[in-house]
Amino acid sequence: MMSHEAYWTAENLEEMVSRRAKILGPSVWAAATPDPRPVISFAGGLPDIPSLPGEILLKASRAVIDREQKEALEYGGTFGAHPLRAAIAERSSRIEGIPVGIDQVIISSGSAHGIGMVCETLLDPGDTVLVESPNFPGSMRTIKSFGAEQVAVPMDEYGLRVDRLEEELKKLADVGKRAKFIYSIPTHQNPAGCTLDLKRRERMLELAREYKTFILEDDAYGELWFETPPPPSLFALSNGDHGVKVSSFSKILATGLRMGWAMGPAPLISRMAAVRFDMGTSPYLGRVIAETIRNGDLDRHVERLRGIYLRKLERVEAALKEHCAQYTSYVRPQGGFFLWLALRPGLNSRDVQLAANERGVIVGQGPQFFADGQATNHVRLAFSYVAMEDIEEGIHRLGEAMAEVAERNAAK
Amino acid sequence: MMSHEAYWTAENLEEMVSRRAKILGPSVWAAATPDPRPVISFAGGLPDIPSLPGEILLKASRAVIDREQKEALEYGGTFGAHPLRAAIAERSSRIEGIPVGIDQVIISSGSAHGIGMVCETLLDPGDTVLVESPNFPGSMRTIKSFGAEQVAVPMDEYGLRVDRLEEELKKLADVGKRAKFIYSIPTHQNPAGCTLDLKRRERMLELAREYKTFILEDDAYGELWFETPPPPSLFALSNGDHGVKVSSFSKILATGLRMGWAMGPAPLISRMAAVRFDMGTSPYLGRVIAETIRNGDLDRHVERLRGIYLRKLERVEAALKEHCAQYTSYVRPQGGFFLWLALRPGLNSRDVQLAANERGVIVGQGPQFFADGQATNHVRLAFSYVAMEDIEEGIHRLGEAMAEVAERNAAK
Repeated sequence: MMSHEAYWTAENLEEMVSRRAKILGPSVWAAATPDPRPVISFAGGLPDIPSLPGEILLKASRAVIDREQKEALEYGGTFGAHPLRAAIAERSSRIEGIPVGIDQVIISSGSAHGIGMVCETLLDPGDTVLVESPNFPGSMRTIKSFGAEQVAVPMDEYGLRVDRLEEELKKLADVGKRAKFIYSIPTHQNPAGCTLDLKRRERMLELAREYKTFILEDDAYGELWFETPPPPSLFALSNGDHGVKVSSFSKILATGLRMGWAMGPAPLISRMAAVRFDMGTSPYLGRVIAETIRNGDLDRHVERLRGIYLRKLERVEAALKEHCAQYTSYVRPQGGFFLWLALRPGLNSRDVQLAANERGVIVGQGPQFFADGQATNHVRLAFSYVAMEDIEEGIHRLGEAMAEVAERNAAK
Repeated sequence: MMSHEAYWTAENLEEMVSRRAKILGPSVWAAATPDPRPVISFAGGLPDIPSLPGEILLKASRAVIDREQKEALEYGGTFGAHPLRAAIAERSSRIEGIPVGIDQVIISSGSAHGIGMVCETLLDPGDTVLVESPNFPGSMRTIKSFGAEQVAVPMDEYGLRVDRLEEELKKLADVGKRAKFIYSIPTHQNPAGCTLDLKRRERMLELAREYKTFILEDDAYGELWFETPPPPSLFALSNGDHGVKVSSFSKILATGLRMGWAMGPAPLISRMAAVRFDMGTSPYLGRVIAETIRNGDLDRHVERLRGIYLRKLERVEAALKEHCAQYTSYVRPQGGFFLWLALRPGLNSRDVQLAANERGVIVGQGPQFFADGQATNHVRLAFSYVAMEDIEEGIHRLGEAMAEVAERNAAK
């Protein structure tokens, strides 16, 4: 063994890394480190724990190994396992109400990976992307890392302001530019919880066509509606031609699978398959999930989850009415994981977050959800993960935190 | 639904895609499409079918769901599942003979993904990478897609020519450049089958240090030695400071898992974690594999595979002696999946491949393994995948193919 000092320290490394690595920096997301205290968490967009589908996955794994071990344990190609693409195409044709072909489907390692593949396929440094604001921080980080400029388009309580979208598209066109894509979470938005109505969806598509840009439709939460299904997706409304819709098994099965899919025009999907260098998402896991679709377990599980998340939302709402009504308002989400609480004037989200934290309650504060980190008076409550029996106590303490901040601010 | 013609055709798309997507083109690897004929294949670097570890995986999956369902089915962070990183660090400390820390390990979706992450972290358009020649086409495609120039450094039958490596490093230094990294498969090389000796390994490291470049050590086949273990890895010889060593569970468990790992200096591993946008490789599969390490199944499986691949190699060698001795020569591989047949003068690899193909025998021809696609008189025989009972017949037909080509060429 050669004896020497380590040469590749963090400092020496800096001169060697790529432009993209420089933008991203060395910071990393090591893991979901559990808080050592017994906290009540409304922070992460994670599924309900008691309903995690371990047994569903084991049953499907047994069937796959018994029936198709060779195909499951060999390379499956960059588009992903054929049976899963076929099952998704068939299931999506039913859900979307338009025919979806296998060549319009690619399997990804979660929808975050689908978003990344779209960025890899479309973005060069200096390009422009329009993003809904507020928005999911992970996606904004990915888009930024490709050197693209993000232009924030504001939302109101009904979702993206399509009038403002038109203004931004026009501004770009006036200087001879066009956006590569518009990034939107139209259904059960993260963090805002709202769902874009049909009229605005249609307007978005008209604008995308007029200004010849794509839409990157993030649909991680679309299937988790509570009482009525959402309007047709942008994908369905454009007959599969608007860009790419990314979806995930993370919220309807488990985040730990890292499995999702993307659908779009076949030529674009083919380009996405070409830019990846991981030789495709696991065909083993792909075939296991295909089996849960085929045997009906996935649809039954989604149905069960809708009931669970509606009950959690109702419990959160009852507790908010009891403990936080004077400090907050919100638009009721029709599905998904998030309730976006607007704080009344005088209450700042950072102060509320800290005061709640001191009481062992974790909430998402507003500014991280804005491309420009702008001041906001919102907190995001994820009602998906918290145990049913902790909700009342958690919101009670959140109300105390708000009261404390309001009192402190009034005294200033 | 809006009624309109599809706008995003392959042609319209071309003007929208990124520089990287343009380099890669729309071509894709759809899947391992089986040949409709009953062929005998020496083509792909795939594991032996009868020994695929379905039952090992099911047993481990059961244990993981029973013991740690919550952790396995939730996000596990961008470095990958902690128990798998810990198991790899401990197992690698034993195999490499140096202490390996958890912070030096990141889980990837196969070694191809590890190689891609290194490229993402280090390469900008215009950078230079030195690559062994011949080499694995998938890696060369990935490196090329980042806009880097690849300089081929030739090998002889004992592996990389370190004298030629020095020349190329010096040439770059003379014009004020340095290579970002040297890409090498030092052990059971793909396609050449050879293993770099200790003295050349040490020289490679000296040169990398002198010219301040990294080594990207691809070790997909390192554990599959037959009679004697290979020399210490470049990673071990440099005490973990030379760059990154990428490894895979593809060849020692199954390619269909898309699971592998990379080891290197902690600051570089942290940078690699930061550039990925997939939120980490599946913690579920990660914990399943960690369980196969913990319960001893993986080590027992690797031991069994060594015996299987040695027996296959011996059968291939016996058949080559019988049917191809007058047309070919080779250096006996000490492990791995590949035998690199040098054809005698007058036999061209393309002709031999075609003639073998007509006889239902598939082999890898030489030029695809060279960065410049240069003419070569080699064919690659993968002896890993072909059924034991087909080997004699397959090599027999290959010999007939060679005889036919030799006769045809002699008649010209």
